[in-house]
Amino acid sequence: MNLILLFKEDFIDGTNQVRLRGRRLKHVMKIHRAVPGDKLSVGLVNDRIGTGTVTGIDDTLLEMEIVLNQQPPEKLPINLILATPRPKVLNRIILGAVSMGVQNIWLINAYRVEKSYWQSPRLSEENLQNQSILGLEQSKDTVLPIIIKKPLFKPFVEDELGSIIKGTTPLVAHPIAENECPKGVTTPITLAVGPEGGFIPYEIEKLVECGFTSISMGERILRTESAIPALLGRLF
Amino acid sequence: MNLILLFKEDFIDGTNQVRLRGRRLKHVMKIHRAVPGDKLSVGLVNDRIGTGTVTGIDDTLLEMEIVLNQQPPEKLPINLILATPRPKVLNRIILGAVSMGVQNIWLINAYRVEKSYWQSPRLSEENLQNQSILGLEQSKDTVLPIIIKKPLFKPFVEDELGSIIKGTTPLVAHPIAENECPKGVTTPITLAVGPEGGFIPYEIEKLVECGFTSISMGERILRTESAIPALLGRLF
Repeated sequence: MNLILLFKEDFIDGTNQVRLRGRRLKHVMKIHRAVPGDKLSVGLVNDRIGTGTVTGIDDTLLEMEIVLNQQPPEKLPINLILATPRPKVLNRIILGAVSMGVQNIWLINAYRVEKSYWQSPRLSEENLQNQSILGLEQSKDTVLPIIIKKPLFKPFVEDELGSIIKGTTPLVAHPIAENECPKGVTTPITLAVGPEGGFIPYEIEKLVECGFTSISMGERILRTESAIPALLGRLF
Repeated sequence: MNLILLFKEDFIDGTNQVRLRGRRLKHVMKIHRAVPGDKLSVGLVNDRIGTGTVTGIDDTLLEMEIVLNQQPPEKLPINLILATPRPKVLNRIILGAVSMGVQNIWLINAYRVEKSYWQSPRLSEENLQNQSILGLEQSKDTVLPIIIKKPLFKPFVEDELGSIIKGTTPLVAHPIAENECPKGVTTPITLAVGPEGGFIPYEIEKLVECGFTSISMGERILRTESAIPALLGRLF
């Protein structure tokens, strides 16, 4: 937690003072070992970042005076279209992508996405928001991403993807693609990343029909959790 | 497992036939659902890759006929100097780095590396080798990395690092560095990555004295498991 993310309801009405309990209090006690007078990095959700000066702290309550005076870091100009990963790795993929500045994420279906994934509690709004918050706290950001679930591949690609990719360069990561992933792009990107085992040929065809170019990072097949940061590092 | 990694002792002496049990048999039964006649990607450790034709499979034994006829993918021209990560994330960091083609890894000490990490069974030769094998199987590689543990920072930097960085561009990833991480380099790199919370100023100074340039990926602070693939994606 490189920044403590605050919400409107943390503030005592009409003041610049917050009262925190639970996870954030615990972290500040255990990791920061903060005492009154200490200054901590804070940010208000979907708003500016700044400093919290500890005015009181004990086992039950953390009180801080907040000054918000800086813009959060810029987001990456990217739409991430992600075949829904195994629930076991979903949390760290979301956290990782959000920490790198991904703002718009579509979790989509694909042939190799197991049906059971869609029932996982990890795909609940609540869990996706919690992982997003951890990603923001990691990277000192405040702006929550928008994560949209699309459990039907064909209608998503045929009816919705066209307007999502407008104004962007649409790329699909595919280990056997002949084109190399471009470096240091200057235009916004829509990046589609397949499931473990990759998109099937039909899915690649549908994406190419829609305007996507398939690109690869070389002959090595990477896990999604490595592939996404590697692609983002390469692209921007 | 995109490739089944074989060892000399898997072969029936003087033949091109292997007999596999345990983890690899289980994977081939459960994930590949292979039957006799199926062809699977295989590779011999530190040797070539090729094809295994299933000649027999049941609950206790997988038999294949092996043809090795291709070179494994090239490694990245990089030395990775890594402040030993929390045992909890060490496995996936090693697996991820190996899958991306990192061949030489030094796990070093730093002020913010907790002493207890060095006692973790995850740092055993056996576990490091197991994670490396998973990384090779992921990326269809066969060449085991060399992972060296250096539990003393100062003597390592003063006495050994000078010869490690010879012929490479030595870079240390540091979130507050002014220099941007270079893109698409053509020279070999030595890349140092700090612990959670980063290297302390003294450590950065020692690395700079040794010849390192500190570089950053932008103002966002990333977890090591995102930072390494992002840096490798950017550099190469």
